[in-house]
This record gives sequence, C-alpha cells and structure tokens, in this order.
Amino acid sequence: AIFKIPCVGRFVCVKNPHLNSMDEDILYHLDLGTKTHNLPAMFGDVKFVCVRGKLGLEGSEEDMQDICTGTDRYCMYKTGPVLSINHGMGIPSISIMLHELIKLLYYAKCYDVTIIRIGTSGGIGIEPGSIVITDTAVDSFFKPQFEQIILDTVVTQNTELDKELAEELLKCSKEVPDFPTLIGHTMCTYDFYEGQGRLDGALCSFSNEKKLDYLQRAYKTGIRNIEMESSVFAAMCGLCGYEIPHYSSINQQTFIK
Amino acid sequence: AIFKIPCVGRFVCVKNPHLNSMDEDILYHLDLGTKTHNLPAMFGDVKFVCVRGKLGLEGSEEDMQDICTGTDRYCMYKTGPVLSINHGMGIPSISIMLHELIKLLYYAKCYDVTIIRIGTSGGIGIEPGSIVITDTAVDSFFKPQFEQIILDTVVTQNTELDKELAEELLKCSKEVPDFPTLIGHTMCTYDFYEGQGRLDGALCSFSNEKKLDYLQRAYKTGIRNIEMESSVFAAMCGLCGYEIPHYSSINQQTFIK
Repeated sequence: AIFKIPCVGRFVCVKNPHLNSMDEDILYHLDLGTKTHNLPAMFGDVKFVCVRGKLGLEGSEEDMQDICTGTDRYCMYKTGPVLSINHGMGIPSISIMLHELIKLLYYAKCYDVTIIRIGTSGGIGIEPGSIVITDTAVDSFFKPQFEQIILDTVVTQNTELDKELAEELLKCSKEVPDFPTLIGHTMCTYDFYEGQGRLDGALCSFSNEKKLDYLQRAYKTGIRNIEMESSVFAAMCGLCGYEIPHYSSINQQTFIK
Repeated sequence: AIFKIPCVGRFVCVKNPHLNSMDEDILYHLDLGTKTHNLPAMFGDVKFVCVRGKLGLEGSEEDMQDICTGTDRYCMYKTGPVLSINHGMGIPSISIMLHELIKLLYYAKCYDVTIIRIGTSGGIGIEPGSIVITDTAVDSFFKPQFEQIILDTVVTQNTELDKELAEELLKCSKEVPDFPTLIGHTMCTYDFYEGQGRLDGALCSFSNEKKLDYLQRAYKTGIRNIEMESSVFAAMCGLCGYEIPHYSSINQQTFIK
C-alpha cells in the first residue's frame, strides 16, 4: 500500500563531510557505484522507498529484475517512483543497507522521498493480525532512544518517527474493511529469543512469570509490538532526512510464544 | 578446509529447562521441526559445522540440495559429517541461527561436534589477504565480553574461543604455501561504518586522525581484525558446548577504507 504524503520538497542529505573528497563511492553491499552506474538516471524519480525484512515477491524474472544482481546481500526492485529493498534481520543488517540506500538517494539527487519500513513483529496485548504503525521506537528498557557505538564512544540518538505520516497511514487503513490498525510504540531488541521473552531458544534463563511481568510492563508504557530494526531505522532516517521527516515503520503483528 | 580435532565425546547441550515440556519444537527460521522432520536420521552424524556470512557455493541444484528450502532466511547444506550454514550480517542474525542450530544438534543427538565460523573481516596492521584465527572476541571497548540484554537485564558473557583448536588450525595452515595465517583477537562491532572507523558511510562524525588513533589503540591490545559476529558466536557456543569447547572463528582479512 502506497500513500501520497504532502511534503516540503527537500533533497535527501548525508551527514558526512568526507564524501565530498571521494573520487568514487562504491555502494559495496548493493553492487552499485557512482562511476559504474548513472544513479540520477536510474533512481532520480524515486518518491517512495519500502524497506522490508524479506521481499517475498512473486512473478517471473522477466517481470521483475533485481537491481542488486551482483550480490546476494540485498535485493532491490523499482517500479516507477517506488523502490523496494530488503534488509535482513537485526539492527546491524538494516544499518548497512540504510547507509548505502541513503547515499544512493543522495547521489541520485532524490527529493520528497517517503521511506516506509514494513515488517512482521510480535504483538503485545493486541489482536493477532493487527497492524501497528510505529510512532516511536523504544529500546529493551522502554526508552525512546538508540545507542550507537561510534569508535569507542556511546552516542544516544532520537527514535521518534513522523507523527503526521502515522496519522495519514491510520486514516488510509480505515478505508480497508477488516484491517485492524493502531498507532503505538514499537520495542526494538538485539535478540529474538531471550531479548523478546521467548521461552523456546537454545538458552533461556527466566521463568514464564518473569516473561509475563516484562511484557506487561512494556504494554503499560504504550508498547504494542516487538521487532529488531525500528530504532536504527528511526535514528538514521531522522539524521539524514528532512527538517520534517517522512518515514514510518509498520509491523504486522505475529505471535510470541 | 576441515580439521580433525581430538575431543572428549560429549553431546551438544542446550541451557533451557522449558524445552523438555514442549510437545513440538519448530525451528522456524530453518524451516525444520521435531515433528515434521526426523532430525537424528538427518543430522545425527554431523561432526563439523561451518557457519559463514554467505555460502557462495557453486554447482548445480542436482549436486547440492538446500535443506532449508522453505525459507529464504538461511541456507544449509550437508556433505557427510560436514554441515554448512550461512548466518547473514551482524550479531542478531547469527544469534537467531545459532539458537536454532544448537537445538537442531541437540535434538539430533550429535556429539563430538566442532563448530567453525569462517568469514571476511577488516584487518588491522596485517598483510592484506591474511587469515586471522580468533583466540578471543572483544567488543568495541576492547573488552573480552559480550553484553546480552535478557528482558531488561544486561548479562555479561565470556567470549574466549578454543585455544587448542586455534593452535591446531595454525599448524594446519603451515602445510599450505603462501597462506599467511596468525592467531589474534577479533573485535566484533554492531555497526559496519562508524562503528568500525569507516569514513564513507552516509553518516560520519569523526576525523581520519581519530579513526587512526582508535585502530592503533585496538592493535596495541592484540586486535588484528574487525567483524560483526564473533562475540555472540563465542558466547553462545561457550554456553551450549562442551566442558572443553571446540569452536573457532576464522576471518580472511580485507581492507578498511
């Protein structure tokens, strides 16, 4: 589902003074580069980017050509102004992709771009199958922040998402019948098993009671689902985006055992 | 390259009392399960597991059948007692795979198993193309530990690898000409760009001087390369393995810009 968002007409920017002095930039994990590819011609018209854990597209190879054919790190497809790209599982994997995607949009001179992350997640206290539109990504301690280690310094970054876009998406969802949708906080963890309270990993050091207590405390702070990428997505889009950012994270709720 | 290691004949174990009370365990990300598959028959003879970022195998589909065909999360191949599996990029991705791999080896009643992680990495102060055999994985602060967040508690885990296996692998490397190999510490980061001192991400908040100072300090502590999975690999294999653990991490050195 694609939604037209009114926006302020700004270019995607980077926050790296070193890039200006580079003769060539190879987007290694995307198998693209500033000298090997005409990025403005290929991507200059992009207005919407959908980033997903895995793409799971159906269709023949003739219908759809993966732009990142030279690598099996990521896959990318473009249909008109819509770019779809996958990001693997977890903060480090989406972080590598976002660094190179943001540079791609910058080199392609894209403007008015809306970035939406779509993925599965574990729901907390909500109807199975619900869609959670994230207003704020929080960490395992329910704090609205992302701790990034830069060299050996811990830097804390903001993880708020675009409130206006969240409301717009919620409004659109009302037009679709049987599509339970809500706005809530999303918790982002580094670990799928013990970090999210699952009892069925190879390791588990807590009781069912302790798990339920944790999830209930999370619910009370406004958290409605858990996944593994939203905090760095919010932080990086916030740093590299617009004055009024246009990015959102949507998660379809699945179960947590 | 596969190396026969003398070992003490112990079964792979899990550290989760909840698993005993489960009627069925679905290894979701591997598309395998205890009721849908005869895991002892399929995997009981496994003695060596090679885990890698990506497998990059060449050959026809007739030669090699991916065991995890029902998912594109991971790929797995088996040749006699050798199991090869990929793990994606970063700590969260390899962590999910290891939880399910360790349970797989446990349900299959495997014993005397040696697990070796093989991957690319960025070298520090060593000849390009060198192989680093990791003796200890360290974090971004050069500490030999992995901080795991379990619910909302930070638990610190040991990241030492098998010294005996490291020496054995080094000995084997001497038999191959032009194969520069050394034993050293490996630094494991959550971030590929700013976390590893790269100047060419979409974000960079430090100077070239600060980067060089950080890498020089890392070198002085015995670190010879940087990658993104070794610490959780060492911690989880240590917790679920043997009294005398048999697991090692090998990295081929590449460049850091």
